[in-house]
Amino acid sequence: MKIALAQQNYHIGNFEYNTRKIIDGINWAKKQGADLVLFSELCVCGYPPRDFLEFDDFIRKCYDAIDTIRKHADTIAVVVGAPERNPVTEGKDLFNAAFFLYEKQVKGVAHKTCLPNYDVFDEYRYFEPAYNWNVIEFKGRKLAITICEDIWNLGDNPLYRKCPMDELMKHRPDIMLNISASPFDYTHVEDRKAIVKLNTSKYKLPMLYCNCAGSQTEIVFDGGSLVFDKHSNLVKQLPLFEESLQVFDLNDDGTFAQPVTTVAADLPDAEFNPVELDYNLCTPEICQAIVTGIRDYFRKMGFSKAILGSSGGIDSAVTLVLACEALGNENVRAILMPSQYSTGHSVSDAELLSKNLGNPYDIVPIQNIYNSFLSELKPLFRDLPFGVAEENIQARTRGNLLMTIANKFGYILLNTSNKSELATGYGTLYGDMAGGLGVLGDCYKMQVYALAKYINRNRQIIPQNILVNPPSAELRPGQKDTDSLPDYAVLDSILYQYIERRQGPKEIKAQAPIAIGIDPALVDRVLKLVNVNEYKRNQFCPIIRISPKAFGVGRRLPIVGKYLS
Amino acid sequence: MKIALAQQNYHIGNFEYNTRKIIDGINWAKKQGADLVLFSELCVCGYPPRDFLEFDDFIRKCYDAIDTIRKHADTIAVVVGAPERNPVTEGKDLFNAAFFLYEKQVKGVAHKTCLPNYDVFDEYRYFEPAYNWNVIEFKGRKLAITICEDIWNLGDNPLYRKCPMDELMKHRPDIMLNISASPFDYTHVEDRKAIVKLNTSKYKLPMLYCNCAGSQTEIVFDGGSLVFDKHSNLVKQLPLFEESLQVFDLNDDGTFAQPVTTVAADLPDAEFNPVELDYNLCTPEICQAIVTGIRDYFRKMGFSKAILGSSGGIDSAVTLVLACEALGNENVRAILMPSQYSTGHSVSDAELLSKNLGNPYDIVPIQNIYNSFLSELKPLFRDLPFGVAEENIQARTRGNLLMTIANKFGYILLNTSNKSELATGYGTLYGDMAGGLGVLGDCYKMQVYALAKYINRNRQIIPQNILVNPPSAELRPGQKDTDSLPDYAVLDSILYQYIERRQGPKEIKAQAPIAIGIDPALVDRVLKLVNVNEYKRNQFCPIIRISPKAFGVGRRLPIVGKYLS
Repeated sequence: MKIALAQQNYHIGNFEYNTRKIIDGINWAKKQGADLVLFSELCVCGYPPRDFLEFDDFIRKCYDAIDTIRKHADTIAVVVGAPERNPVTEGKDLFNAAFFLYEKQVKGVAHKTCLPNYDVFDEYRYFEPAYNWNVIEFKGRKLAITICEDIWNLGDNPLYRKCPMDELMKHRPDIMLNISASPFDYTHVEDRKAIVKLNTSKYKLPMLYCNCAGSQTEIVFDGGSLVFDKHSNLVKQLPLFEESLQVFDLNDDGTFAQPVTTVAADLPDAEFNPVELDYNLCTPEICQAIVTGIRDYFRKMGFSKAILGSSGGIDSAVTLVLACEALGNENVRAILMPSQYSTGHSVSDAELLSKNLGNPYDIVPIQNIYNSFLSELKPLFRDLPFGVAEENIQARTRGNLLMTIANKFGYILLNTSNKSELATGYGTLYGDMAGGLGVLGDCYKMQVYALAKYINRNRQIIPQNILVNPPSAELRPGQKDTDSLPDYAVLDSILYQYIERRQGPKEIKAQAPIAIGIDPALVDRVLKLVNVNEYKRNQFCPIIRISPKAFGVGRRLPIVGKYLS
Repeated sequence: MKIALAQQNYHIGNFEYNTRKIIDGINWAKKQGADLVLFSELCVCGYPPRDFLEFDDFIRKCYDAIDTIRKHADTIAVVVGAPERNPVTEGKDLFNAAFFLYEKQVKGVAHKTCLPNYDVFDEYRYFEPAYNWNVIEFKGRKLAITICEDIWNLGDNPLYRKCPMDELMKHRPDIMLNISASPFDYTHVEDRKAIVKLNTSKYKLPMLYCNCAGSQTEIVFDGGSLVFDKHSNLVKQLPLFEESLQVFDLNDDGTFAQPVTTVAADLPDAEFNPVELDYNLCTPEICQAIVTGIRDYFRKMGFSKAILGSSGGIDSAVTLVLACEALGNENVRAILMPSQYSTGHSVSDAELLSKNLGNPYDIVPIQNIYNSFLSELKPLFRDLPFGVAEENIQARTRGNLLMTIANKFGYILLNTSNKSELATGYGTLYGDMAGGLGVLGDCYKMQVYALAKYINRNRQIIPQNILVNPPSAELRPGQKDTDSLPDYAVLDSILYQYIERRQGPKEIKAQAPIAIGIDPALVDRVLKLVNVNEYKRNQFCPIIRISPKAFGVGRRLPIVGKYLS
């Protein structure tokens, strides 16, 4: 039996676009002589559709799309993901479903059992979990169709009390098919390979696993669809981050006609120690994820050009490089906005960077505007000493200039804040926290340095000065980040323990490197900074997610909370 | 048996504060000779704790609090809400639990069955639903303890497939106790009374229902705890929005010793037509909810003083009055920021309003600052005509001034945007959309007018001019809101259908008043405006929630979505 995987990039709610793409995939698979083609989870409407699912009109449009697609599933069978109405009044209105289309009819429907409701996922908000399980018969084979999370409980996942594949095994299936919308994070590519492999070794069946590609606001879907034979050999991993359609020829004995990839799918290293690694991790995949996140955000919002403030610091430098990679150098405009507190090299470093990249840039000084603010506020402020308020005027003047230029010429403003700053509130609301998309908001400062090193691996794109100058907001004379914050290596290791690992103060203080030589009071201070700045992050733009715990929709804390603060 | 209800206002994560408050309540109830005292859902940590529940350290602190409270439950029984660890590895880590404390011990624990996971609720993110049900025996009576949502499924609520009271009835209870954290919206006070009454009439048992009071960021808990006897007579409703402790003397026959309130709890009017009503509704409870929301936000954030931009328009006028009510006139500072496009009466109207209220105000003109922006941007903008970019400079200059003064003197900036503006994106990010708390963000423009009328019911606090002048952003000469938007009466009726009622374009076009005389293309235009402006609302501050569907945490739409847009 020839089975095709269609790893595609959909657009949430854009039914016309998604339907056309799916039909193109069907036609391609037919030409290859495939018997069956798999698409990904909720592909008809795009994933995650969120509260659009509460609109009956939206669900009607999903049904209309299935109705259109059905007519193309004539001599080929098609598995597509879409919401299905629950015919029973008891339980929620919808199922997260896989439609099996053949001979222009809906021949069967499978419902998702394990509904993820953690981190960025809210599926229990909309869907009723499956409570009936059946295989689908097709050309003499029994297909066990599951949806994404369904294969992540092998009986040992405490989030769920049902294992749908165990239920399906009662019907003696021949093939496992899984349609997914499984997002990237820097741990997930390997985890995913491991779980698919574990399913094939537990059930002794081949599995074809179809993921989607492309980004939806903050969530990047990295593709990497998988085929394993019944002996748990990896047959193929489809490319990461891009669309790809491929056909696989499954033999009757559960092996595949194509040669099996020689490298076995490695299980994650049991010794893997994320404490030492993840907060300064850079991989090519992280770069690809961010570039995909930028590119798709612009395309799906209907924009092609970006603007950003280029300060001569490492964060804006890395953001600029990644944006040029995503959108083309000519489409990314850098604005240099020096003040009386800017050091001379900030401007020249930022200029050199743009010259290296060949992207357009302008210099708009803020000193006069800043002075006009001070002069209008003089009657209120009188002789009060310079302080944070005056620093923030500068940051917000820059935010205003960037937004004004963006409004005038049709740019989206890219935000350059990193995760360490966002965590500690080291940024100005409506100032350097302004922007439509947070490019580095899920990268700790140490990770930003690692990204810069990776970017410069072949030639010096980011000037040396930018790499070595001590970080500074340059909002008062001689200011350094370390005036307000601990060294980033120390800070990031504490933040990582708290944010990614959800450790409490006691556990963090007991951990290296904190246990060796760092003041325990510093841990308390950092955790307090994180918690009291929830109100700032609450107004931040979406952040391209590369870690298992990014700020934004996947991390929900009460603003008035008074815990560790 | 004497049973006390302790309707209290907790602070999320503030264990010391909550524990002390609960112990005070226990001591008060003991003095009144109560046998048993009820507190509200998750009172030990405050509701909703959100992702704090993912921190083991946070759960430990909940256990420590229970351990402290337990020692005060000696001769009196105490029911308190707290998370409980799930001892079984299968299923999520926690239950949402009611601890029954007596003789200084944990004598029993009840788990919540129906976990709300819609609108502002995310309980399935954290909790495993109950699957065992038992009554608790106390002084010869069997207590059926349920938690909040548990009593909202009488077998006809499609969200749930279990009815916990049906399960508990198998053990023949004598009394129903419910501990809740049930938030206000303008439909909910009556709904709540109706559901408690329906439970008593279905099960023929008395019910004591204990809610909390006070606001947690955007969610206002309105108290109004209820006691019904077994004949479904309302014995008492505790006051709305404030703390209150009361004791009830329950007879053996399921009636109460105190006189029954003569007015029966009315079921909501079946003819109630929200289409005609809710988008211009003003009730004293809506005002109380907003005032509570402001007051508690400031207190729980540790602030006492507010600042806001006073434009001479209706939104800032109503915001100012409500803020003065919440924080005291002397603690609310109005800043008037005229430009060359401001009409003369804007400033004089805003001044008169502050004179009526007696709150401090200042005038800071923005013309010079605006001109300095234009002059620095001249090399980039050259001779391009005046447009939205120039309008936004003014709004963002005002935002910057307000934030600067707030930073300098320790104010929180109150945002004055209404729901109609937020829905249509008629506002400037980092400009008039700046602020820490959205006071009117859940009130349509027509509702803001109704609030103004209510505020002026006894004397003219808001000047007549402000009530009658046509709404204008005053960002260009002679500008009116109606240049860009339809009349607010029409706009609000369309928005209400879409946002609160989740109607699609087809249904909205078929409805009065749209069906009689309004261009159907206008409906499409409005829905598109709502959807393309999700990116703006995504960066907005928390909004005090007064409706069943407020923007913010309870409404989650994809930013890159392309549905009806």
